[in-house]
Amino acid sequence: MKKLINHPESVVREELEGIALAHPDLVKVHFDPNFIYRADAPVQGKVAIVSGGGSGHEPMHGGFVGKGMLDAACPGAVFTSPTPDQMLEAAKTVHGGAGVLFIVKNYTGDVMNFEMAADLAMAEGIEVQSVIIDDDVAVENSLYTAGRRGVGTTVLAEKICGGAAEAGYSLSQLVDLCRKVNGWGRSMGMALTSCTVPHVGKPTFDLPEDQMEIGIGIHGEPGRTRLPLKTADEIVELLMQPILSDLPFKAGDEVLLFVNSMGGTPPIELYIVYRKAHQIAEQHGLKVVRNLIGPYITSLEMAGCSITLLKMDDELLRFWDAPVKTPALRWG
Amino acid sequence: MKKLINHPESVVREELEGIALAHPDLVKVHFDPNFIYRADAPVQGKVAIVSGGGSGHEPMHGGFVGKGMLDAACPGAVFTSPTPDQMLEAAKTVHGGAGVLFIVKNYTGDVMNFEMAADLAMAEGIEVQSVIIDDDVAVENSLYTAGRRGVGTTVLAEKICGGAAEAGYSLSQLVDLCRKVNGWGRSMGMALTSCTVPHVGKPTFDLPEDQMEIGIGIHGEPGRTRLPLKTADEIVELLMQPILSDLPFKAGDEVLLFVNSMGGTPPIELYIVYRKAHQIAEQHGLKVVRNLIGPYITSLEMAGCSITLLKMDDELLRFWDAPVKTPALRWG
Repeated sequence: MKKLINHPESVVREELEGIALAHPDLVKVHFDPNFIYRADAPVQGKVAIVSGGGSGHEPMHGGFVGKGMLDAACPGAVFTSPTPDQMLEAAKTVHGGAGVLFIVKNYTGDVMNFEMAADLAMAEGIEVQSVIIDDDVAVENSLYTAGRRGVGTTVLAEKICGGAAEAGYSLSQLVDLCRKVNGWGRSMGMALTSCTVPHVGKPTFDLPEDQMEIGIGIHGEPGRTRLPLKTADEIVELLMQPILSDLPFKAGDEVLLFVNSMGGTPPIELYIVYRKAHQIAEQHGLKVVRNLIGPYITSLEMAGCSITLLKMDDELLRFWDAPVKTPALRWG
Repeated sequence: MKKLINHPESVVREELEGIALAHPDLVKVHFDPNFIYRADAPVQGKVAIVSGGGSGHEPMHGGFVGKGMLDAACPGAVFTSPTPDQMLEAAKTVHGGAGVLFIVKNYTGDVMNFEMAADLAMAEGIEVQSVIIDDDVAVENSLYTAGRRGVGTTVLAEKICGGAAEAGYSLSQLVDLCRKVNGWGRSMGMALTSCTVPHVGKPTFDLPEDQMEIGIGIHGEPGRTRLPLKTADEIVELLMQPILSDLPFKAGDEVLLFVNSMGGTPPIELYIVYRKAHQIAEQHGLKVVRNLIGPYITSLEMAGCSITLLKMDDELLRFWDAPVKTPALRWG
């Protein structure tokens, strides 16, 4: 296993220590239970947004904590759901009197634990609402889920809802907005290589040198199909077709196009993927009005990419464009 | 060869087409000769900054074109110097009447071609000055250079000089500033894996599963030594020691700490590297006042990292913090 780590058991703790050393102006890190939270939390009168999930998908979620995005993020062990005590402590720490929104990717453990944390927080008098993200069109059910998995749209929902919370949206308005983003976003990913979970020490699956996996999940769970390796343009066709046919995207719609590295795919390849995805979107009459290109929701060092299309309207554009200042996303 | 590409010969062209489609608000792309330039070029009265080099190191340099950083970037074929006609056309396109600064990494082909382009531009009445970046402490000479290679400090020099050009620095002031940055920056990198040049189709070198290469260059050229794989903390010690002993960094100095992915190393590992590098810097009495963490100067999909330390003063801090709006760096 070739990784820049010290010991499989210390990966998450040391990564968090690195984040704490690197970004004290933006975030603080609480250990035992582990969560990353805004340096200026709680922000009084603002709805607090909390997310989380297994580690190994960085910068999601911890890299998205800061003004204009998340108030806190709870990292589990690698590819393992965080626990309710993390979520509860995070919610209590960042709650500013206006309630807490949990943004939860649709994995069985995440959903169950965020639900338990919501119950615990409400028992302590904190109003909590949860929205589930389930945007992956690859498979209907998976090893880790009932229903579709939550993938790339999560990043976009955290940015857009973060902007809206900053602008004064109430908890119920944020729930509506987050559901709208989830309803309007669709994703699909693929892998050229497997990844290796540190404490396992060997690749999650074997993928021969001439094969690829289409519709992969972010934990290396199987996708739709294993195929002989194809060109980038053919691969993008295979990813875009199910996305475009799943949502009623129609000519004239404005969209955000998000091309994501699974961790091991470098920028030069992402732009080749972006090129074809943009062309296909335009051939369908869609207008690509915003984009995001880079490693934002990874699967450790897996080589591969995912594509997310999100239909945009004035409300989504406003909060996508709003200022954000986090370790991994910064503008405005 | 597992890559998201269509054909080895079309990699650079299609990457540039992707950039043109993705960022029309920030940059334009000129083809034949190839260069990326600011969408609002030429900026009258401002010194124009032009850089370039082989492709395969993205986002450097093309991803750093935009307000507050480069005016143009010339990409060669993968790991191959761009040609003087690219640099000349780029300089003519972005020249705003106040001269042009070439920021050149110390590789024999780059230095020779930028020199020729400077002569050609000056023959056309454009004042050009060049500054060579040679910050890599790993080896004194290499396969591609006489003297030290130019690596991570290039990114920092482009940002800082870009900020100063925007603030009205003259060409001679920028030359002094760029030399100061180069004089105060030191880097060293390492590889866990090789990379594969598309038109070669097989890894540049073989690195057994239990070995790593310390002091690697950004083209996969050999480094100082090949060693059995070590822990992240031990690796960071091996990179930091030559950096710290090369420059007279002294207790109390303020520094920028840049931890860079070689392309295939994901964020979770970079933060483990950052943690130790920050700790070592502090043990030496240095004060880490800024940082940069991510894939900024890559070597295709190579797994590994590089570390750059740059001594900072008020002038460097001012222009590091200045607003920047490029595809790959954006703040302020």
